[in-house]
Amino acid sequence: MNEQIIKKMQEIVGENWVVTDRDNVSTYCEDETEKAMKPKVCTDCIVAKPACTEEISEIMKYANENKVVVVARGGGTSLSGAAVTIMPSIIISMERMNKIIEVDETSLTVECEAGVTLGQLAELFGKHESLYFPIHPGDEGAQVGGLTVMNAGGVRAVRYGVMREQVKALEVVLPTGEIIHLGGKTIKNNSGLDLKNLIIGSEGILGIVTKATLAIRPKDKHTGSLIVSFDSEADAVKSVTEIFKSGIRPLAIEYMEKEAILRAAKDIGLTWPSDKGNIDLYFIVSERKEDDLYEMYETIVGICEENNASDSFVAESSRDQRTILDIRSHVYPSMHDDLVDAIDAAVPIKNLDKYAKGIAGIGRKYKANLSTIGHIGDGNMHTSILNEGAVKPDYYEDLADEIFKLVIECEGALTGEHGIGKVRNSKMKLQFSDAELRLMKEIKKVFDPNNILNPNTAI
Amino acid sequence: MNEQIIKKMQEIVGENWVVTDRDNVSTYCEDETEKAMKPKVCTDCIVAKPACTEEISEIMKYANENKVVVVARGGGTSLSGAAVTIMPSIIISMERMNKIIEVDETSLTVECEAGVTLGQLAELFGKHESLYFPIHPGDEGAQVGGLTVMNAGGVRAVRYGVMREQVKALEVVLPTGEIIHLGGKTIKNNSGLDLKNLIIGSEGILGIVTKATLAIRPKDKHTGSLIVSFDSEADAVKSVTEIFKSGIRPLAIEYMEKEAILRAAKDIGLTWPSDKGNIDLYFIVSERKEDDLYEMYETIVGICEENNASDSFVAESSRDQRTILDIRSHVYPSMHDDLVDAIDAAVPIKNLDKYAKGIAGIGRKYKANLSTIGHIGDGNMHTSILNEGAVKPDYYEDLADEIFKLVIECEGALTGEHGIGKVRNSKMKLQFSDAELRLMKEIKKVFDPNNILNPNTAI
Repeated sequence: MNEQIIKKMQEIVGENWVVTDRDNVSTYCEDETEKAMKPKVCTDCIVAKPACTEEISEIMKYANENKVVVVARGGGTSLSGAAVTIMPSIIISMERMNKIIEVDETSLTVECEAGVTLGQLAELFGKHESLYFPIHPGDEGAQVGGLTVMNAGGVRAVRYGVMREQVKALEVVLPTGEIIHLGGKTIKNNSGLDLKNLIIGSEGILGIVTKATLAIRPKDKHTGSLIVSFDSEADAVKSVTEIFKSGIRPLAIEYMEKEAILRAAKDIGLTWPSDKGNIDLYFIVSERKEDDLYEMYETIVGICEENNASDSFVAESSRDQRTILDIRSHVYPSMHDDLVDAIDAAVPIKNLDKYAKGIAGIGRKYKANLSTIGHIGDGNMHTSILNEGAVKPDYYEDLADEIFKLVIECEGALTGEHGIGKVRNSKMKLQFSDAELRLMKEIKKVFDPNNILNPNTAI
Repeated sequence: MNEQIIKKMQEIVGENWVVTDRDNVSTYCEDETEKAMKPKVCTDCIVAKPACTEEISEIMKYANENKVVVVARGGGTSLSGAAVTIMPSIIISMERMNKIIEVDETSLTVECEAGVTLGQLAELFGKHESLYFPIHPGDEGAQVGGLTVMNAGGVRAVRYGVMREQVKALEVVLPTGEIIHLGGKTIKNNSGLDLKNLIIGSEGILGIVTKATLAIRPKDKHTGSLIVSFDSEADAVKSVTEIFKSGIRPLAIEYMEKEAILRAAKDIGLTWPSDKGNIDLYFIVSERKEDDLYEMYETIVGICEENNASDSFVAESSRDQRTILDIRSHVYPSMHDDLVDAIDAAVPIKNLDKYAKGIAGIGRKYKANLSTIGHIGDGNMHTSILNEGAVKPDYYEDLADEIFKLVIECEGALTGEHGIGKVRNSKMKLQFSDAELRLMKEIKKVFDPNNILNPNTAI
């Protein structure tokens, strides 16, 4: 990396906060994307660790004038290569900007610097009597800035939605170095064009989020988990749609192939509560009143039984709830060695059945090992392509294309939560028309005329 | 209006669907904006009434090539001059595109053409056993396209949010005539930049919405209304914030000055249920179970009494609920003859008290007749500037500027639901920095390089 750039970064953030040696730098160049999918990493980079928004503004002014590529980096937990450096870059690591600024219990918001981790929020609200932050996409190393620009989702998105529904206000540094403020603590806001939602989900290509004000929610006193088993996937899907129509809103509804969940349980030496059927639905529920929780169990089980459920299990103790969650969380690790690609398409609830049948057909056609598990409560089904040693099979491209074409036929989206990143850009034309792609590219130019911010990502 | 344009419009939509005579055209050139605020109307326009998206696409291609201004018109119920024509224009009236395409009870959506009115949706779901469309900004003549681009709100936005939270998918004709499709029925969707939210609230300057897919919600069986009276505005505000923290979500919470509500009641010969106190809170609540409704009344009244409420009244019969709603709905009509400007700023819940005190101070300073009533549940307070015969007082500009500066000091937004339109553009610099305004203007250029679509609006 160019000496002048190193010197300039040291000037802006201080010598102690610049990393230049290749070994240390290389750990900042990757994210959690599967090995077989990861783009070719460039480690000819420099890491700067600013302490504040103004330092980031200085870095961007310099980078923009000198046309140096910049990649902002949060927890590095992206699964779509969004944080991978693919050309010589200044990596702005947000790790020092980790202050929780204010919990406002009247407006029900928490304001944080972008480097605050999900773990910090979990700890803060774990201790809080009555409020919490609902989003929990899994890895607690994820940072607020990354959660925002990737529009993170996860399991608990059924009741309160994804990051987009939580982000009230943002501070953003533009590629020009200008600092802008979007949104606010108001519930209604109809002034001007909605730039805030443009930043949410923009995968770090329009600006660098430096602060975020997030919605927090009342904590229910009573929580529980419920497992219901089905022989047929169609019955499980139908139960979910009828539960929504009844007006019930669990925190989460997960769909799991029995084989995958039993393998995960065995792997960590725990016992899954049901061995009947082929498909399990896993409900996480919470209510203000204990009676309502019981009534919710009853209603859910009632609807599922009408749809031929073969077994059900209620986990009331926190130990049982924990065991179920631990096993669910281990499904990915348990298949990781063979995981080629975890497609996380989203389809409308009404087309879940069509999607599942289509996937089964594609699997048979290619004799491929496909495993579907996912957030059925929001139609975000994760179809994993597995192969021994996670080696891309010969038929991978054709198979993936067929899956994405099925997704589009099901009126779905290429990605429900992982984002396009640097691994799905070539598929964008399956979902979007030329006019739609042109608008996105021109908006990118409006924000970043020199294309210095995380190029080749998202669009 | 130029003969060639008339001929072209007749060619595209058919002779019967073009209006050219000045008297008839002039009714399409105005909206519901207060007389004193309305921009100077230009009636040198032509009205085209297309039957389908393709005809709108044809009109836009022609208009774009020939640089003719186009204003898309829904129900004409805008309160910010957004639908007013201020230069010779082709007015595209959406009235013939009024088909409800599909109610999808599995994905919980309704798909409509943009000319479908709020009244049509109310009628459709009025008959439906278990589902409804929650947004009801008042005037049932409003159309889905207008509701979308104005991001309509209204009273019942506390539980389910405003239009932004209901719009799942859009079909839009760009100024170039290209037809694009944004969003979808999926709950999660992380592909590409979020163009859908850019269109929502864009006030008709980026494209013409031709179809929308909207979320519908489970209908609660039990509904009621509750009036609680307070002597002090601070106590009323504090009660609202404590109710939210308790986890309760009424459909609506309205804040009303007693004087205004009693005048409205007298005006239409009805009796308001409480004559104690200076401020009333009006709660609209609904629950799946009757017991929960009673418990909600109890909790709300309990919290209010702890905060010095002086009176409360529960309306359970539909007749009583109707009376209350009728009186509330008449507050604006009852002051209409003297209404100069209805400012609809939104402030964070925590700053409601500061805002109310500030408004009182400004009123005293100018000896102005100000009346505040509004959607306190979402911080969207409507401060009306009144003067005999609705004549703008000499001090109007200074007074309005002070109110907007107060709004910004309270971390608020210039408008919570009416939009910027053509009446608040000059105030945008109070809320936005140069960089923020530049981004908005450049995004407008990306969509509409020839600036033909509803110019001088929104930004």
